[in-house]
Amino acid sequence: MSAESMQDLFVEQLRDVYNAENQIVKALPKMVRTASSEELRNAFEEHLEQTKGQVERLEEVFQQLGLRARGTKCAGMEGLIEEAKEMMSEDYEESVMDAALIAAAQKVEHYEIAIYGTLRTWARRLGHDDVAELLQETLNEEGEADQKLTEIAESMVNVEAAETAR
Amino acid sequence: MSAESMQDLFVEQLRDVYNAENQIVKALPKMVRTASSEELRNAFEEHLEQTKGQVERLEEVFQQLGLRARGTKCAGMEGLIEEAKEMMSEDYEESVMDAALIAAAQKVEHYEIAIYGTLRTWARRLGHDDVAELLQETLNEEGEADQKLTEIAESMVNVEAAETAR
Repeated sequence: MSAESMQDLFVEQLRDVYNAENQIVKALPKMVRTASSEELRNAFEEHLEQTKGQVERLEEVFQQLGLRARGTKCAGMEGLIEEAKEMMSEDYEESVMDAALIAAAQKVEHYEIAIYGTLRTWARRLGHDDVAELLQETLNEEGEADQKLTEIAESMVNVEAAETAR
Repeated sequence: MSAESMQDLFVEQLRDVYNAENQIVKALPKMVRTASSEELRNAFEEHLEQTKGQVERLEEVFQQLGLRARGTKCAGMEGLIEEAKEMMSEDYEESVMDAALIAAAQKVEHYEIAIYGTLRTWARRLGHDDVAELLQETLNEEGEADQKLTEIAESMVNVEAAETAR
């Protein structure tokens, strides 16, 4: 085990997620505009602010590691955002588009849950305990954001079930 | 709410995940060959078999819906697999490559957790209860596979901590 090359991998993935977060900051405003349900629009708006905070938190991580904050192209997030854009270009009616937007957003959330979980574990492995705590904060926020989207998706099912039963 | 267009979205996303699963079946053998730790290699091999089972389960879903099983290009999974391939082309030493492989695999797992969670919720919304159960089975398997990878990643940290303490 060479600590140096594990450190290289860690920094590389930090740059990957820094780029991914910035891609999300650019993509979310269109999702806000496309959403019809007020609850969903609010959730996306809140998450946009939260994401900007996560970008700043990553900048703090780079600083603590003595590195300049910079991103490298994150192909995974590019694919996820391409999917979201494809969905938004479809001619769905409002409630169906909202369901599609939630699906796209949950893929993005889960990407982040995976990568922040990994980065947190690696930070511990490398002895960067303060950095691990910062990454854990973001991981918790992503988990909550995903849970919130699940609740909105499920409340849509329940509303329709109630309407059908009428 | 037009049940028809929600059904269209549901089928479209089933085709997306059917393509995604087939991409994983193609990508996993290289990950098995690249992994050094026997535990990780076994986990990938097991997951390859499980993924083939998930492909068959999706074929059962299509059949229950009276549809021919076919996929449409899943851009999200393409991006994730591109990332995994980039990682495998790096010149990491064995234990670092194993860590990188776990990271790549957990991104894939989380993509699937997100999409199967969505599909399960939509199946219920559309009244396809048997299909919802099939999708839940796969969702549980993906959750367990992700948990298994987390355990392997954490055991790597502990082994190194023990070696450092010696």
